[in-house]
Amino acid sequence: MNEAESAPYVTEEMSGSVLWLTLNRPQQRNPLSSGMIAGIRSALERANHNASVRAIVLTGSGPVFSAGHDLKEMGVGMGESPVHRESRIRQVLLDCSQMMLAIVHSPKAIIASVQGTATAAGCQLVSACDLAIAAEPVQFCTPGVNIGLFCTTPLVGVGRNIHRKHAMEMALTGDLFSTSDALRFGLINRAVPAEQLHQATEELAQKIASKSAQGIRSGKEAFYRQIEMPIEEAFRFANDAMLCGMTSPDAEEGVGAFFERRAPNWKKA
Amino acid sequence: MNEAESAPYVTEEMSGSVLWLTLNRPQQRNPLSSGMIAGIRSALERANHNASVRAIVLTGSGPVFSAGHDLKEMGVGMGESPVHRESRIRQVLLDCSQMMLAIVHSPKAIIASVQGTATAAGCQLVSACDLAIAAEPVQFCTPGVNIGLFCTTPLVGVGRNIHRKHAMEMALTGDLFSTSDALRFGLINRAVPAEQLHQATEELAQKIASKSAQGIRSGKEAFYRQIEMPIEEAFRFANDAMLCGMTSPDAEEGVGAFFERRAPNWKKA
Amino acid sequence: MNEAESAPYVTEEMSGSVLWLTLNRPQQRNPLSSGMIAGIRSALERANHNASVRAIVLTGSGPVFSAGHDLKEMGVGMGESPVHRESRIRQVLLDCSQMMLAIVHSPKAIIASVQGTATAAGCQLVSACDLAIAAEPVQFCTPGVNIGLFCTTPLVGVGRNIHRKHAMEMALTGDLFSTSDALRFGLINRAVPAEQLHQATEELAQKIASKSAQGIRSGKEAFYRQIEMPIEEAFRFANDAMLCGMTSPDAEEGVGAFFERRAPNWKKA
Repeated sequence: MNEAESAPYVTEEMSGSVLWLTLNRPQQRNPLSSGMIAGIRSALERANHNASVRAIVLTGSGPVFSAGHDLKEMGVGMGESPVHRESRIRQVLLDCSQMMLAIVHSPKAIIASVQGTATAAGCQLVSACDLAIAAEPVQFCTPGVNIGLFCTTPLVGVGRNIHRKHAMEMALTGDLFSTSDALRFGLINRAVPAEQLHQATEELAQKIASKSAQGIRSGKEAFYRQIEMPIEEAFRFANDAMLCGMTSPDAEEGVGAFFERRAPNWKKA
Repeated sequence: MNEAESAPYVTEEMSGSVLWLTLNRPQQRNPLSSGMIAGIRSALERANHNASVRAIVLTGSGPVFSAGHDLKEMGVGMGESPVHRESRIRQVLLDCSQMMLAIVHSPKAIIASVQGTATAAGCQLVSACDLAIAAEPVQFCTPGVNIGLFCTTPLVGVGRNIHRKHAMEMALTGDLFSTSDALRFGLINRAVPAEQLHQATEELAQKIASKSAQGIRSGKEAFYRQIEMPIEEAFRFANDAMLCGMTSPDAEEGVGAFFERRAPNWKKA
Repeated sequence: MNEAESAPYVTEEMSGSVLWLTLNRPQQRNPLSSGMIAGIRSALERANHNASVRAIVLTGSGPVFSAGHDLKEMGVGMGESPVHRESRIRQVLLDCSQMMLAIVHSPKAIIASVQGTATAAGCQLVSACDLAIAAEPVQFCTPGVNIGLFCTTPLVGVGRNIHRKHAMEMALTGDLFSTSDALRFGLINRAVPAEQLHQATEELAQKIASKSAQGIRSGKEAFYRQIEMPIEEAFRFANDAMLCGMTSPDAEEGVGAFFERRAPNWKKA
């Protein structure tokens, strides 16, 4: 095992109460291998239970954010019999979708800080985060069609972020789309020059980290659940969540501080 | 009771067959208090049953469209025991969501004419209307996170108007968003200079008021119902509504007038 | 029967492995009459089962893409008793929605090449296609409200392409919307000068036709199915489709060719 192989798949660094998670296989273009998927999941697990972490940034090292699945590890295109690779592929797909859902279900806000190209499941990773900032001129693509496939699982996430015509344009052409396209589609929130990405991400993350952890935990969970419901059920569900929020200690403190024109003093997460 | 308190919560004024409803607590920033919610609902009830009303405009008086819930009335942040305020909060949340649904379910088109800042449930009010025009440079925000909460109920409406990344950006940052942002997100249809807002709203409303009331009643109801269905069920449902429309007196008159190149003469609403 | 009436409703022309379908009633503005609907459906049926067809373009002849339903054929506005026209209208609506669903369910990518105005069900036809390119300055409208109706069935398709406020703006005003509006709404993917429409469409279609037919068939079907599911169910469904894809001969060939830096050699559709 050489030095690169023994390095952690995901590095973790705190900046105040913001946790930066960095995909750490730059030479392999940060593929979502079994190891990387497990690395992201275990880092998220730790962060979810760490009250000092109040916002999470997900970024990549090197020129690529993530190139998506590790096709060699999955055994596709290697001349191997499908029978042998089927169970391995099934497991990676399951692990990968559970990792994406872990992002959606995390009680903390998660920001993709897209420093390089986001491809296929790497593009899905951007879509799974709550917010995304990208460095110009990084590119986004779902190029499964170029290799006899279709980015079907990435489109689960991407298709819930953007309009159908745009999603199908990405999937059917397999083209590289610019940060401007991604902004226009609604796949990312902001694009900044590369040299400003770290600072812009840090400012956004610190702003969110300064809010009530309880408010964000409750609100994020409620948002992704109600958005899949018919509107009347969604209101009933959201009203219950809102009632819990409005009778919580952090609301009492936050609204009191607002009335008294002072900074709030939140409970720990 | 001083003069301001005895004034109606919502003023009603007809302009031709367009009903202008104006939130009328400018000094308190038009909060969605129990009184205001009841005022909007009863004005809508009357309008729904008044055949002379063929389109409705919802606007605010003063520099704010609506600041959202009345937290003092709800007893949040006042040092009161949660037990006492819980039933009051529950009732206001229920009344508020029913008022929002009454806008969606009204048989008339409802246009938000946003003359000032729309905050939290005030922003949700914009999202509940069928159309929205805003005066530059009014702002939109869902700032619950700033006071230990999360704009969970506003996001039911806002989240059905705009993409997920944009909805979460509004809710997680609590920032003020410009009319340009609101246009880009799809939360509003048009932005005009403040001095043109009344005229632009009036033109849009009068155009809609000139259409068949029957066509709009049937079409608006069908739209919000079918959009929540799987596509095949949506087509079956929409086909039934379309068949009713195409065999209605207003369609016979409207299509006949079109063939004869004359103005149609609709039935009363 | 004059020459125009005996002409095929839809002409079919192959360009390499791209099938161009052209609505062929230019003088009547390509209405979606029973004959036209049947013509589109049977052309699609043939194309679906023809392995030589790897992408489909849908366009119109003359200055109009399609004016929507043929109201005269349906007997609306002709002074006829509703009883007589009801069963005829019901049949046309059913046939039309099945034709729209046949586009969505076709195993091949279908591109609308919008060379002229797309009105009502003609606008819905654009929304049903996977992708759309329009020639500037064609216009889009859902003008049912102008004739005592509401574009309820067109809004099933249009409402799944664009945000709610935009959909309601189209339906409630009945206005003509520009190619810029359609781009901004997300109803079309690209707008080009009229003289470049054929070439731009051809390039896009040929690009898609060069991909694996198996990949597109599987991916298109999965996309439109999973997008209607709750996200966890969508991932389970998409993982199954992805597993099939990744163990398919075309993926083995495509990924192998990618590793070997050569052009892939797909199986026939």
